Amino acid sequence: MFDRTIRHCRQCGQAVERRVPDDGDTRVRAVCPACSTIHYENPLNVVGTVPVLGSRVLLCKRNIEPRWGKWTLPAGFMELGETTAQGAARETVEEAGAQFEIEDLFTVMSVPRVGQVHLFYRARLTSDVFDPGHETLQAQLFEEHEIPWDELAFRTVRETLLRFYADRRAGLFGVHSFDIE
Amino acid sequence: MFDRTIRHCRQCGQAVERRVPDDGDTRVRAVCPACSTIHYENPLNVVGTVPVLGSRVLLCKRNIEPRWGKWTLPAGFMELGETTAQGAARETVEEAGAQFEIEDLFTVMSVPRVGQVHLFYRARLTSDVFDPGHETLQAQLFEEHEIPWDELAFRTVRETLLRFYADRRAGLFGVHSFDIE
Repeated sequence: MFDRTIRHCRQCGQAVERRVPDDGDTRVRAVCPACSTIHYENPLNVVGTVPVLGSRVLLCKRNIEPRWGKWTLPAGFMELGETTAQGAARETVEEAGAQFEIEDLFTVMSVPRVGQVHLFYRARLTSDVFDPGHETLQAQLFEEHEIPWDELAFRTVRETLLRFYADRRAGLFGVHSFDIE
Repeated sequence: MFDRTIRHCRQCGQAVERRVPDDGDTRVRAVCPACSTIHYENPLNVVGTVPVLGSRVLLCKRNIEPRWGKWTLPAGFMELGETTAQGAARETVEEAGAQFEIEDLFTVMSVPRVGQVHLFYRARLTSDVFDPGHETLQAQLFEEHEIPWDELAFRTVRETLLRFYADRRAGLFGVHSFDIE
């Protein structure tokens, strides 16, 4: 999505070198040869919701890359200063313009290939009127048999929806923690 | 712990400016006036375990700041390329030199004040012999009544232990998601 490679020191602007720091660390890091700043690179959290109105689930058709035109649950990168639930709610407002009450944590998925952890909350919609932002072409409610399974944007969305319907059939929603290769 | 402030562009080394990008964003970011790179700053994940041997829980006495000399559950920053469970297991090896089998996700705690999310897994110890690394002064098993509640390093450790003992008394371990102000 954007180039996260660290080429220069964030403290002083010098070109960094890649080596194992001398502080007992075991990993190669971007280290500044001028001011010795060590630049750690860590996974990012993506936070979102499964917005539900009666028997229907809200999906958003993406107006941004990657996966332009594919359907997703509202979700995006967690920001500093917010909780995971607050971030999930913010993304649901930004991408769908939905009105809702946030409910319990539902899925926690590590996606190590891209250095991300995705966390989805269930949300109870209080209106069927949506006002999607610029990242969304269309916000639409789907019955289970209408879900565009072959047009979903991400594995995390697919796996979350599969568990949502399984739990709904079982009559009990749990917290599902698993990994996506 | 270290200065994460972005003063220079990671791509080209220019001094950054702080402004709202022109791409529909609503937040102030560190933006490079030379190459236009936008530097996002996001929360970090801390991953760890509640290592259990019979009725006892393993705590580590910290040999690093912050909270030198205080007791903690083994935990540390999640790294790129690993899952949350793999990171929790790695930290348990590094800090305690413990032998164990990782079990289910137990707590998910947002700590917005410091821009972190802490995730703890339960772990079943398979040995009472430990080989703590340089970050740990001592690794020791505690019965519930022996836990040094007033000498714990972090709120996330205290809250995780409280829920561990409550769930053990109830005979059922859940996944606990909550925030720490």
